[in-house]
This record gives sequence, structure tokens and C-alpha cells, in this order.
Amino acid sequence: MSRAYNFCAGPATLPEPVLRQARDEMLDWRGTGMSVMEMSHRSDEFVEIAETAEKDLRELAGISEDYSVLFMQGGASSQFATIPLNLLGDKGCADYINTGIWSKKAIAEASRYADVNVAASSEDSGFTTVPLQETWHTRADAAYLHYTPNETIGGLEYDFIPDSGAVPLVADMSSTMLSRPLDISKFGLIYAGAQKNIGPSGLVVVIVRKDLLGKARAETPTMMNYQVIADNGSMYNTPATYSWYLAGLVFKWLKEQGGVGAMEQLNRRKSAKLYDFIDRNDFYANPIDPRFRSWMNVPFTLADDRLNGDFLQGAEARGLLNLKGHRSVGGMRASIYNAMPEAGVDALIDYMAGFAKEHG
Amino acid sequence: MSRAYNFCAGPATLPEPVLRQARDEMLDWRGTGMSVMEMSHRSDEFVEIAETAEKDLRELAGISEDYSVLFMQGGASSQFATIPLNLLGDKGCADYINTGIWSKKAIAEASRYADVNVAASSEDSGFTTVPLQETWHTRADAAYLHYTPNETIGGLEYDFIPDSGAVPLVADMSSTMLSRPLDISKFGLIYAGAQKNIGPSGLVVVIVRKDLLGKARAETPTMMNYQVIADNGSMYNTPATYSWYLAGLVFKWLKEQGGVGAMEQLNRRKSAKLYDFIDRNDFYANPIDPRFRSWMNVPFTLADDRLNGDFLQGAEARGLLNLKGHRSVGGMRASIYNAMPEAGVDALIDYMAGFAKEHG
Repeated sequence: MSRAYNFCAGPATLPEPVLRQARDEMLDWRGTGMSVMEMSHRSDEFVEIAETAEKDLRELAGISEDYSVLFMQGGASSQFATIPLNLLGDKGCADYINTGIWSKKAIAEASRYADVNVAASSEDSGFTTVPLQETWHTRADAAYLHYTPNETIGGLEYDFIPDSGAVPLVADMSSTMLSRPLDISKFGLIYAGAQKNIGPSGLVVVIVRKDLLGKARAETPTMMNYQVIADNGSMYNTPATYSWYLAGLVFKWLKEQGGVGAMEQLNRRKSAKLYDFIDRNDFYANPIDPRFRSWMNVPFTLADDRLNGDFLQGAEARGLLNLKGHRSVGGMRASIYNAMPEAGVDALIDYMAGFAKEHG
Repeated sequence: MSRAYNFCAGPATLPEPVLRQARDEMLDWRGTGMSVMEMSHRSDEFVEIAETAEKDLRELAGISEDYSVLFMQGGASSQFATIPLNLLGDKGCADYINTGIWSKKAIAEASRYADVNVAASSEDSGFTTVPLQETWHTRADAAYLHYTPNETIGGLEYDFIPDSGAVPLVADMSSTMLSRPLDISKFGLIYAGAQKNIGPSGLVVVIVRKDLLGKARAETPTMMNYQVIADNGSMYNTPATYSWYLAGLVFKWLKEQGGVGAMEQLNRRKSAKLYDFIDRNDFYANPIDPRFRSWMNVPFTLADDRLNGDFLQGAEARGLLNLKGHRSVGGMRASIYNAMPEAGVDALIDYMAGFAKEHG
């Protein structure tokens, strides 16, 4: 098979030019006689790769010098503990908003370290909507307010940035990072597992306001201490060098595409097309409150669940892969991150239309 | 430049056939239309890659079903905290042997969680020897005994496996894993950062006796809890899939080479050659007690430190890279892991001979 359209929620499809460059540089990075994965992380070559990646990310996302950018090992799940360990300080309590499975995981882990207040939840709706901020019961003495701007499994996405006042706002941006412009200055901390919009899994990017550093609890493992990681330029130990390099290639690609502004237009167009098609076709349905539909993860069901297997099989035969919904939700899910070309969405819609005509 | 001989201590050189295969499969793994790094970790394809890697590792290293094999994110440095958090149980105290910089780092981190007893140290000798076991002051009530079989920076290596009696033996095998046969049954836990003999950085392999699982302290982050990682087949969260795949390719390559028995012969021959040359040439010196010289990391000094720059420059011009010693030790260091061909050691010796002749 040539390259397929891969709708996996993560690890997700990467830009083909990035993979081509990684392939071409695999045995010999720019005449060094080495693969990037064989380079000392202290070498001039790798330090340049690492610093360029950070510079490009700062430029793309508009990250000021008030923030440290950390390239840490692990993923969002490791940050679920790292965040309370570093940010609680002497406060001991934190506010969380519950909008789905990833929120719940973050809450469960934080509850092991903090007095967690679930300030709002949309569980009663089956996580089909986002509770409006005027209904939230946040606390002024919370160490931070955590939310999940996009629920990858549910396909639910905030269309607003919460106003947390003086309380630092913390966001799991794993599935929306770099998908559109964002006012970073409204956040205390943003984290993003790489395997959706940034690069391969095993890397997590953390953007943290510098005044929040230095408050880690005594029991915090050194490798999870933001201050230590920041002081050492994310090289306290050997970082995930190859993943960092690939992230850098993705950032370069994003710049070539026109940056996050261009991504916003593309992603808005791709998701609008797909939701419009679903809404206009009785054979398909998406359960999410239209205001809060995710641009990145589009879950949908068929009119008859018994056709799911046929649908997936036919899709696969056409090179439309990984459309099966998460086991906790069922149905289908098309993840259409930055690297999913518009032609992939067109091909999906075309297939869906034909399938509905045949079976509807 | 074509492929160089890269003597970096880690990230280190990888087998060229592994890199070639990774290159060839970068855009399309076996007709799936996807790179391995774009695959869902839950997909049949990736699960097969992951399971095959574990199977091959078990076969290569002779790991019985009494042990769990974990593919965790991070490196040895993250394990420095993970180990006490998981193994102390209700004991609170642990024994450590101090033979160099990596031992000291392990001790420093463990001391944040445990009553650490440094049962023996060779610091007085400048870490040029290993304290013999009859001089160790270990404790029968220690939760475990930790040692560092090979000090990557110092070039110091144990030629025996300590007898820890009923106390579980814990070893940082980052730089010796799979370099020769090993009786795994003597160990409670072995860990190895991947970036020396296994694959790219950001992955750490943990081999833990199953009866030691399930004792994690309450404050252990879930992502550091061995029991959780074991129960979930190292997929509690999205693992470092691409690194896992590359590790699998390295394991296959090792099997093709004849396994760890063949590696033992090769590594013994490579290191003996290099030490013999150093010992026979007055221009070079290695400070380590000959009994405890590392097969993997060979530090050496020139007769005149002022020639270091010239030596490194000339080496680089011949494609002999990363010979500079660690900043804490100075001089030179040639790391000659499994993937360093014997021809690389020959080329190094040839260069060293010529350099000594010219400057000696």
C-alpha cells in the first residue's frame, strides 16, 4: 500500500514531508556520519536541533520569555501527577473541570496528592456538552484550575478559555496544541503529549509560567521537578532525543504551511465539512452539542450498529484507517489533526456517502 | 561523510542494519500505509511489534516467567526514584554500593525516600577499583541492595555478581545489558536506559521479579508504579512506541549475530585489544584496576593533556567521533558497545598508534 489516510487518535498520522526527511537523514544527519538518535545530547549538533525546535515552537505558539518550555519524557498521564506535585505548593487544594474520560483520569491522579474540587462536570449529559463557566464552583484559594480543552475520546471541545482570575489556569492541550492560535498568556501551564499534533509518543511538551516553578513538594521525583528540568534545558538526564528532533521537523513543517493561523483555517474547514455531512445525512449522527464539537476528533455513529464491521472493512480497503471509536464510546471516530490533509477528509466523506447510499 | 565510527557513551551508535531497516520502513511499515510511529499502540500491528520485542528480549537475556519485563518511559535517572518508591515497602532502608558518578546519583535520589546505607565505596581510590564483597557492610533488613555493574563515566566494571542473600539485588545495567550472558535469576530487578545497547533514548527497560511487585508507596505516581505498568503490558498510557520498535529491531539483530554469547566474545576481544594497546604504549594510560576494567567504556589519557585537542581533531577527520572523555574525568573515552564493530576499534587503535608515533 502507498500512504494511507490514518484517522488514529494517537499516535496519529504525521506530515509526509517530515517522515521523508527523517527517512533521508536516518543513517547520516547532514554529513555527520550519524543518525540523530546516535548523537550525544550534549553535542553541538543535537543542542542546535533542540534549541531550534524550542525556538520554532515559541515562534509558532507565541510563547513569551515569561514561560519555560520543557521537553519531558512520558505523556499527559505522567503529567497528571507531575502537575499537583509541582504546583500545589503550600495550598493543598486544586479545582478541576470534568468533561470526559481524560478529565477523569487527571482528577483521579491529582486526588492522590490534593484536595480536588470538581468545580463543574458535564457527566450528567454523557459528556456531550461543556458546563458554562457561570455554573462553576471554583475556589479562590485553589493552587490552580485544571481543564481539558479537548476530550480526545468524547470529541468535546471548549470554545472558550476559562477566566480563572488570579488562580493559574492549567490545560491538557494534548490534542489541540498548535491546531490554531492561542493566547498563551492566559495560562499558567499547558501540557501536550506529542503523539497527536507534535511528533512520536514518549515526549510531552510543557509550557509553564516561570513564577510557578520552584514549588515542588519534597517527595517529587527529581525527573518530575519542573524547576530541575527547566534549569537543565530539559537535559537533566538524556532526553528523548529522536522524538525531540521529529517534533522539530513538525514545527518546521508547520511554519512552512503558514503557522497556526493557516492550521486554524484548514482545521475549521476540515471539521465543518465532516460535521455538515454528518448532520445532513440521516444515516450518521454525532451526539455532541454543536457549540462544543471538537475540530480534532469527530465521533459518529451509523444508523445501525450492526453495520460497523462492514463500514470499517470497506474503509480499510480504501486506505481509510483507524476509524473505530474508542471502546468506551463505541461507533466511529475520525481524528483529523494538523497532519491530516483535507483530501483525507474528502475521501472519508466520499466513502461515507457511498456507504450510506448502499446501506441506508 | 558516509557512516562514521561513533564512540559516544550514549546515545550511542546503533547497528547499521537496524537503521537501514528503520529507514526503509519509515513511510510504510509492511504495507500498512503507516510509519510505526503513526500506529495506534492498541493496533494488532503494534501489539505484535511490542510482544515480539519482549519475546526476543526474554530469549536473548534468558528471562523466565518469574520476571515481568517493562518498557517504561524515561531513563535510568527516572528509575533512581522509581526503585525506592516501589521496593522499599514497609522497610524504609536500602543498601547501595558507591563505585562512581552513576552510583552517586542513584544514592542521592534514593536518599530522598529511604534510609540509605552506603555499604561500600571506592571513592577513596578515585573510583578506580571495585570494593571486594567481603568488605561490604550490608544490612540483613535492607529492602534491597543496589549496585552499578558498569560505571559508564569512570569505565569501571564489576567482574562478579554480588551475593545479596535473601535481600533483592538491584542493578543499573544501562551500559552492559545484553553485552554478554547473565544469570538473571540472581537479581530482583535490573534496569537499563535504552540508549547504549538497546535503542534510542527515552525508553528504559525494567526486568523485575514478580514477587517484588505490588509494594509501591502511597505517593508513587501511577506512571511509576511497576505493578500498574506490568498489569497493563507497559501500555497504561501510550508507550514510546517508536523506541520500542527500534529496540525490537536491535533484539532481532542481536539474535542474528548469535545472541549474547557471540556478543561476549566480540566485546571481550574488542576491549582486550584496546586495553592491550594502551598498556603497551607509554603514550596512553588507563587508570582503572585491570581486574575491573569496563568492556564497554574505555577511558584513557594522553601523555600530554595539551595534545587532547589535536587528538580529537585528527580523530574526527578520520571519522572516529565522540572520543572526548566526560567533563568530570577529562581525557578520552571510547565507548564500544555491542553495535561498535571490531573494525571501529581497529581503526581507533591504528589512529592512536600513528598519533603516538608522531607526538610521543
